[in-house]
Amino acid sequence: MIAILKPGVSTKQIEDLCTYIEAQHIQTHVIVGTDQTIVGLIGDTTGIDMRHLETMEQVESVQRVSEPFKKVNRKFHPDDTVIRVGDVTIGGPNSFVVMAGPCSVESEEQCMTIAAAAKAAGATIFRGGAFKPRTSPYAFQGMGKEGLDILSKVKREFGMPIISEIMDARDLDLFDDVDILQVGARNMQNFTLLKELGRTNKPILLKRGLAATIDELLMSAEYIMAGGNDQVMLCERGIRSYDKRTRNVFDVCAIPVLRELTHLPIIADPSHATGYTRFVTPVALAATAAGCDGLEVEVHHDPAHAASDGAQALLPDQFQDMMDRVALIRHAL
Amino acid sequence: MIAILKPGVSTKQIEDLCTYIEAQHIQTHVIVGTDQTIVGLIGDTTGIDMRHLETMEQVESVQRVSEPFKKVNRKFHPDDTVIRVGDVTIGGPNSFVVMAGPCSVESEEQCMTIAAAAKAAGATIFRGGAFKPRTSPYAFQGMGKEGLDILSKVKREFGMPIISEIMDARDLDLFDDVDILQVGARNMQNFTLLKELGRTNKPILLKRGLAATIDELLMSAEYIMAGGNDQVMLCERGIRSYDKRTRNVFDVCAIPVLRELTHLPIIADPSHATGYTRFVTPVALAATAAGCDGLEVEVHHDPAHAASDGAQALLPDQFQDMMDRVALIRHAL
Amino acid sequence: MIAILKPGVSTKQIEDLCTYIEAQHIQTHVIVGTDQTIVGLIGDTTGIDMRHLETMEQVESVQRVSEPFKKVNRKFHPDDTVIRVGDVTIGGPNSFVVMAGPCSVESEEQCMTIAAAAKAAGATIFRGGAFKPRTSPYAFQGMGKEGLDILSKVKREFGMPIISEIMDARDLDLFDDVDILQVGARNMQNFTLLKELGRTNKPILLKRGLAATIDELLMSAEYIMAGGNDQVMLCERGIRSYDKRTRNVFDVCAIPVLRELTHLPIIADPSHATGYTRFVTPVALAATAAGCDGLEVEVHHDPAHAASDGAQALLPDQFQDMMDRVALIRHAL
Amino acid sequence: MIAILKPGVSTKQIEDLCTYIEAQHIQTHVIVGTDQTIVGLIGDTTGIDMRHLETMEQVESVQRVSEPFKKVNRKFHPDDTVIRVGDVTIGGPNSFVVMAGPCSVESEEQCMTIAAAAKAAGATIFRGGAFKPRTSPYAFQGMGKEGLDILSKVKREFGMPIISEIMDARDLDLFDDVDILQVGARNMQNFTLLKELGRTNKPILLKRGLAATIDELLMSAEYIMAGGNDQVMLCERGIRSYDKRTRNVFDVCAIPVLRELTHLPIIADPSHATGYTRFVTPVALAATAAGCDGLEVEVHHDPAHAASDGAQALLPDQFQDMMDRVALIRHAL
Repeated sequence: MIAILKPGVSTKQIEDLCTYIEAQHIQTHVIVGTDQTIVGLIGDTTGIDMRHLETMEQVESVQRVSEPFKKVNRKFHPDDTVIRVGDVTIGGPNSFVVMAGPCSVESEEQCMTIAAAAKAAGATIFRGGAFKPRTSPYAFQGMGKEGLDILSKVKREFGMPIISEIMDARDLDLFDDVDILQVGARNMQNFTLLKELGRTNKPILLKRGLAATIDELLMSAEYIMAGGNDQVMLCERGIRSYDKRTRNVFDVCAIPVLRELTHLPIIADPSHATGYTRFVTPVALAATAAGCDGLEVEVHHDPAHAASDGAQALLPDQFQDMMDRVALIRHAL
Repeated sequence: MIAILKPGVSTKQIEDLCTYIEAQHIQTHVIVGTDQTIVGLIGDTTGIDMRHLETMEQVESVQRVSEPFKKVNRKFHPDDTVIRVGDVTIGGPNSFVVMAGPCSVESEEQCMTIAAAAKAAGATIFRGGAFKPRTSPYAFQGMGKEGLDILSKVKREFGMPIISEIMDARDLDLFDDVDILQVGARNMQNFTLLKELGRTNKPILLKRGLAATIDELLMSAEYIMAGGNDQVMLCERGIRSYDKRTRNVFDVCAIPVLRELTHLPIIADPSHATGYTRFVTPVALAATAAGCDGLEVEVHHDPAHAASDGAQALLPDQFQDMMDRVALIRHAL
Repeated sequence: MIAILKPGVSTKQIEDLCTYIEAQHIQTHVIVGTDQTIVGLIGDTTGIDMRHLETMEQVESVQRVSEPFKKVNRKFHPDDTVIRVGDVTIGGPNSFVVMAGPCSVESEEQCMTIAAAAKAAGATIFRGGAFKPRTSPYAFQGMGKEGLDILSKVKREFGMPIISEIMDARDLDLFDDVDILQVGARNMQNFTLLKELGRTNKPILLKRGLAATIDELLMSAEYIMAGGNDQVMLCERGIRSYDKRTRNVFDVCAIPVLRELTHLPIIADPSHATGYTRFVTPVALAATAAGCDGLEVEVHHDPAHAASDGAQALLPDQFQDMMDRVALIRHAL
Repeated sequence: MIAILKPGVSTKQIEDLCTYIEAQHIQTHVIVGTDQTIVGLIGDTTGIDMRHLETMEQVESVQRVSEPFKKVNRKFHPDDTVIRVGDVTIGGPNSFVVMAGPCSVESEEQCMTIAAAAKAAGATIFRGGAFKPRTSPYAFQGMGKEGLDILSKVKREFGMPIISEIMDARDLDLFDDVDILQVGARNMQNFTLLKELGRTNKPILLKRGLAATIDELLMSAEYIMAGGNDQVMLCERGIRSYDKRTRNVFDVCAIPVLRELTHLPIIADPSHATGYTRFVTPVALAATAAGCDGLEVEVHHDPAHAASDGAQALLPDQFQDMMDRVALIRHAL
C-alpha cells in the first residue's frame, strides 16, 4: 500500500504520518518525488482501511499494491482447489462439470422429465430453484421446502448431486440433502449469509453480483473461506451494462483473470448472462473456449409454461446440441 | 404491455397467442403494422412475467407500457406519504429532515460527542451503524448489540429518534428501540429481509442498490409495502460508474424522477455518494436544490480515528456550515 | 412505434394526436387499456424522431417496436455480406480472416519483421497504425504518411492487403493504397468522417465505441451504407465498465446478437478488449467459439520497445499458438 | 508513478528495470515489501506510457501517483481561468453565465423569437446548432452555413455572443462570426478536431464524452491547451448509465471534482443530462448549488415542432422560472 501525500506537506507532517502508521506494526518508506511525495507501507496491510488513511490531512490518496484477499489468492495457494461432490470432480486441470435443470422447481414431473434429459445429454449435477429471488413481490417466489423435497427425489432417482439457491441462513436445515448451496447475484454481498455459509461444510457456488468487480467477488469468497469453508466455486453470470439487447454482458475475460488471481474453480452461467435461449449456446461455447471449469445452464422441456425465466431456457434438444459442441471444443483444446 | 411479433407469423399463430393471453384474464388487441404486428395486453398485467411471454414462438419481444409497481405508484396514490417519528415529520411539502451521525458506533463517548454537535447544528435524527456490511471479512464489523445500546442512550439523552442499519431479520428484536430501520445498498434486493420488514410497523429507509435502476428500487419498496408496512423512505446514495474520482456517481436527477413516480419521501446520502469529505457539502446542496425531503450525512469529530469511512465524514464545523447553506437554499426556494 | 399516453387524456386530445401523426403519412391505431391508452404508429417510422413525439402534451413515453436501421438490417437483407480484399474473403459461412500487426507503425524494419511472422502464422491481412488517437497530447501520435508508405512496402513485399486507421477525412488521398480503412472506437460517432467514408468504395472496419450500444454501432454502419458504401465490417473491441482488472469488457454475446440483427461481417479485437497480452488468446478463442468472422490482433516482436500498447501485444510465438488454437476450434465447430 | 513488481523477481531483474527507466531521465527508488516490491519513478512522468512499462517481464502493474495533465492542472495554475466574450465574463468567483437557445437552428423567425425570450429572462449568450450530430443518418442534420448566418443575425439584433457546435475542422472559416466553438460529447476524443481548435484563438466549450472519465475530459482539454489555446470551458452534460428513466445520469459531483483539479470554467448542461423538459430545472438548480460557473440550456417556443430534441427544451416561461430560481440560489450562497 502506498500513500500519496499532498503537495507542500512539511517534514514534520511526514514524520507524524509515519509514526501513526508504524504504531499499527507496518513499516514505512518515504520517496520524495519531483511533484509528489509517497510513503510505502511495508507489512501485512490486509487489515488496513485504505479510505481511513485518506482522512489524514497529509494524504492525497492511497493505493493498494497488493491484493486485499489472502485465502482465495493464488499467490499464496498456487494449486487449484478441487471440490468433490459425490462422483463429480469440480476444478483442476481435467475436470469439466455441467449443472443443468430448470430455473424453478415446479413439480416432481417437471423435474424428473428435465433431469432425465439433462443426464442423457451429459449433465452431472441437477440444478433447480426452490427459493426464488424475484424483482417483483407479485411474481412466483418458489415452492420452498416442497421444492427441495422434489430435488431430493431427483437426486435419488438419477444419482445426480443437486444444487439449489439459499437466500436465508435460517433455511440451512432445509438444505441438508442439497449438495451445493448457491448464493445468487443479489446476495453476493449479503455478508450475514456468507458468514453462516462459512461455518458449513458444504460446497458453495458464489455468483458474481449484478455490478460487482472481480475483486469484490473474491472478497465475498474470502468471507466464506475466512469462516473455515474452503469449498467455494465462483460463477460469472454477466454484469450490468447500458446495452439492453441482452439481459447482462457476459464478462468472458473474467475467466482468465480469475484463473490468474485465484485457485478456486470458475463456473460460467450463460443463461442469466444472455437472458435469451438463442444466445445461450454461443456464450457457453465462448466460456468453454476461454477456459472455465464448468457451466450452469437452465434447461426446460416446456419453456412457455415455465414459472420463471423460460425465455432463457434451452429445450432438451438444444441442450444436447450445446453439450455436443462444448465437448468438441474441450476435445480440441 | 405489448408483445411485438416476429415477422411472418401466421393468422393462426396470432390467434393462438391471443387465446393463451386471454386465458390469463387479460384482453388482447392486435395491430398489424407494415413491418411488424403487435398485440396489446389490456388489464392488470403486474402479475404477468414479460420474459415469459418472450418464450412464445410468435413473439420477438415484449415491452411494458405501465409500471409494474402499484402501492408505491403515485398514479394510484397521488398524495405524498408523510412519516412521523417522534416529533419529526418526514415527507410532504414543508418538511426537511437531516439524519446525522457517525458511520459506525464506536463508543458511548464518541456518540455523545457527535450527537451534541449534530443536534446543535440542527439535525433531528441520529444515525449510527452497529452492524456494518464491509467488503472485507477482516475489517471492523460493528459493535452489534452493544452499539444499539449506545444509540438508545443517545436517544434518551438528546431526545433524538435513532436510525441504524439492519442486515439480518433475526436481529429484529435487538432493534426494538431503534426508530427507523435502514436497509443498506447491498441488501436492497435481499428479499428475505424486505419481506420481514414488511411485517413490522417501523419506518424503513431503503437505500438504492449499487447499480440498481430506479424501477428496481421502487420494486424493492413495493416488497415492503406489499407486506403491509406503508412507512418507506427511499434513499439515493450514488450508483456505480466507470469513473473512479468519486466513490459513486450521485444520480441527482433520481430525485425529481422519484418525485414523479412515487409518493414516498426521498432522502439523499451525499456521504456515500461521493466518498470524500470535501465533496459532501456541494452534493448535499445539489440534492436540496433538486428537491429531496432530507439528508443522511456522516459526521465524526475525529475522522482520522473513525472505525470506518472516516474519509467521507464531516467534522462538526463542516456539518454546521453545510446545515447553514442547506437552510439558505431551502429558504430561497 | 407506439406512443403511451398520459393517464386521463381526453378523446379530443387523442384525436388531435392521431391527426398530427397521420399528417406525417403514418397510420394510427388506438388501444384503450385499463390504466393506459396507447397509440400504435403503422408505416415507415425510421424517419420519425421518437423523442419528438414525447414532447406532445398527451404523450407519456414512446417506444420503438421495429429497428431504426434499414440497410444494415438482416430482416431486409437476409444474405451475409461478403467482402473481397485481394485474395481474402471476409464474411459468409466458410471464411475466417485474421488481421495482425503492430499497434503503431514504427519503422520499416519493425513492420517487415512482424509481417513475416504474422504471415507465417496464417494472418492474411496486415494491420498497423500510422495516425494514432492517443488520450494524451504528449504521447506518440503516429508516423503519419511515412507510416502509410511503410505499410505499402509490406503489402508489396508479402502480398498482404493492409488495414490502417483513418482519423481525418482530409487524409483520404493518403490512404489510396490502403485496402481497408479502420474507424476507431473514439470516432464511431464522428459522423463527418462516416459520411465521407460512405462516399468511398473501400471496405471499412467500424469499431464499436467505448460505450456504444449495439444499436448505435449499427446506426453508424447505416451512415456509411446510406452514403453508398456497402462494404462495412463491424468490430467488437470491448466496452467500458466499472471493473478495472481489464482495459474493457469484451461483450462476447454481441457476436450472436449482431449475427441476428445484421448481414455485415463481425470481427473481434481481443487486444483492445483486454489490454493485457496474457488475456488476448483466451478472448480470441472465446470470440471464435461464439462465431465471429475474424480477428484483429496486435502482434509485436519487441513489445517492451513498442511505441504504443506494447502491454497488449502478442509475441510472434504467442500469436502462432493463438492461431493454432483458433484453427482447432474452427475445425471442431 | 510506481511499478509494482511480480513476486519473486531477482535483484538482477530489479537492477535491469531501474537501468531501463533511468535511461529515460527518470530517477528510481526501490521499496522491498513483505509480499511485494515496488519501484518509485521520480521526475516528470507525463511522457511515460504506463501501459508500456507493464510489458516489462518484471512488472505486475503500474500506477500513476501524479496526474498526466499539466496545463489544465490547478496544481500548476492555481488561479481560475477567466474568459471574456464580448461583455460576458465566464469563470472566476463572481461570474455566472447562461447560454440558451434551441437545439437546432430552424429558421430566422424561430431564432429571433427564442432569442428575445432568452435575453428577457437573463441569458447572455445564444446557443443554436447548425451542424447536428445525429445517431441516425435519416434524421435532420442541421441547416449548415445558412444556420450560422441566422445566428449572426441574432448576434447583431440582440447583442448576444453566439455559441454553436463545430463537427469538422474544415468548417472553421464558416465559424468566423461564432464567438464560442462547441465540441460535442461524441467528438470529445476527436483528436484531429481538438488539435485544430488548439490553433484557433476562439473560446472552446468542450463537452464531456458519453462515457468519458473526468481525467479523459481533462486530457482532451489538455490537447486544446497544448496547441496554444488557453480559452477552454468544460461542460458536464451527463454520462451513460444502465438506468433508462433519464437520457443520461448527470454527474453533479463532477463539478466540485473539476473545481479541485482544474482552473478552467465549468458549465452544466441540464438539457442533455436529463432528456426531459420536466427534469431540466431541478438539475439546473442542483448544478448551480454545487458551484458551476454557468449553464447551457435548450429553450424552444414550440417544442412539438422542434427539428430535434424538443423533448428536453424549456418553454420561454419555464426558462424564466428556472432563471428566477437559479438567481435565488446564487443569491443565497
